[in-house]
Amino acid sequence: MGALHEGHLSLVRRSVDQTDITITTIFVNPTQFATGEDLSVYPRPLERDLKLLADEGADVAFVPSDDEMYPSGCSTTVAPPALSEALEGEFRPTHFSGVLTIVLKLFNVARADVAFFGRKDYQQFLVIRKMVADLNVPIRIEVCPIVREPDGLAMSSRSVYLSPEERDIALSLKRTLDLARTQIKEGQRDGFELITEMRQSLIDGGVTSIDYAVVADVETLETLDPIRLPCVVLIAAHVGTTRLIDNCVVELD
Amino acid sequence: MGALHEGHLSLVRRSVDQTDITITTIFVNPTQFATGEDLSVYPRPLERDLKLLADEGADVAFVPSDDEMYPSGCSTTVAPPALSEALEGEFRPTHFSGVLTIVLKLFNVARADVAFFGRKDYQQFLVIRKMVADLNVPIRIEVCPIVREPDGLAMSSRSVYLSPEERDIALSLKRTLDLARTQIKEGQRDGFELITEMRQSLIDGGVTSIDYAVVADVETLETLDPIRLPCVVLIAAHVGTTRLIDNCVVELD
Repeated sequence: MGALHEGHLSLVRRSVDQTDITITTIFVNPTQFATGEDLSVYPRPLERDLKLLADEGADVAFVPSDDEMYPSGCSTTVAPPALSEALEGEFRPTHFSGVLTIVLKLFNVARADVAFFGRKDYQQFLVIRKMVADLNVPIRIEVCPIVREPDGLAMSSRSVYLSPEERDIALSLKRTLDLARTQIKEGQRDGFELITEMRQSLIDGGVTSIDYAVVADVETLETLDPIRLPCVVLIAAHVGTTRLIDNCVVELD
Repeated sequence: MGALHEGHLSLVRRSVDQTDITITTIFVNPTQFATGEDLSVYPRPLERDLKLLADEGADVAFVPSDDEMYPSGCSTTVAPPALSEALEGEFRPTHFSGVLTIVLKLFNVARADVAFFGRKDYQQFLVIRKMVADLNVPIRIEVCPIVREPDGLAMSSRSVYLSPEERDIALSLKRTLDLARTQIKEGQRDGFELITEMRQSLIDGGVTSIDYAVVADVETLETLDPIRLPCVVLIAAHVGTTRLIDNCVVELD
């Protein structure tokens, strides 16, 4: 979706490193935004983005118009897998249908062998990988690490929306994930107790509201109580009017 | 779906004639049948089918199991285009989602350049072609003529269900299409009047019930009144417990 940051560029570098041809795409996909979300104000620094992609060695930047991707009358969509219903799916019910439809279309246009996605959108990565399996799409999905600012904030195109005060509050997401990881590593297995602490940590940190804070199975995203490893800790919270997500996977030692 | 007849074999011959490699598939797709439809009794003469495909020069026959196409937990599907809602979609509301999902999966497995479909399933052909366009599927859809028995009955795997008496009644579909074509060619432009005559012709012919008998736009399937050319005349009717469909396109001279 453009507004590129180091997270995106790490994917481009991975592709340049591992493949013969790197195809990138910048498209602020309208169908994955609900009414009232930030489609109209989503940052679109196209020239800067294209220069960044070229500098990293991308071979192609595909920058279609809305009409090119969704000509008049275009109405076939992907109905997302069950995995999409919780978490993001609960708070953004039409989101994954929009994501999967555009991703499948772009896969079909690019006909790539492998596609690189960031792990910051953890559920998105799982849902895309499930679509690829369920629909036999001939592509391999590779997930790449979250890239963070020096202070720990997960890179996001939406962090430009944050005021300096909100930027500080936003750090409570990573701090809460660290708290959860430490407690799980130290043996905390009571999911309800940990989630209660996580919510308190986010509130103490100053977030405006919490969409979810959960400990879940790394494959099915089912909430874990008791907690078992590996697991993924996922948070979605609002800081002012900006919605942020972050997560961390806690592996078996 | 197997139970091959000359209609299917004409598609194989077309592919053998036009392409380097002909991939066929036999799979009685459970997800395109609704509860109460004929999934359990659908004819499955597999050995005979495989011999027919080999005799025609097919290079591959892909005969997957249900579990191979739909492993446990498989839940991503294709949500059909608007074009799917009328006609078959009205009487078989889950049908096209099942059809499009399996067709997209098979396209992804085969990675073919071109796929051949029969025009007997006219709406199915249009809906598949629309999915291919809407989702940018890299395949070309070619539609092939309806193949008929010497007496005019459109070839169908379901005609084995017909008793000799029902077989005679089934001819009323083609007779009614011929009537419609003749009247349109002679200048009939009153859609309501023609459809009334078509329904009477089917009832006189002895059909058990009529799902639809319409004159529609060849691309959008919108009902035409007044009639204009080109148009497609479509019928779905029950003869005893067997549901039959047929159609004819009336071109501009």
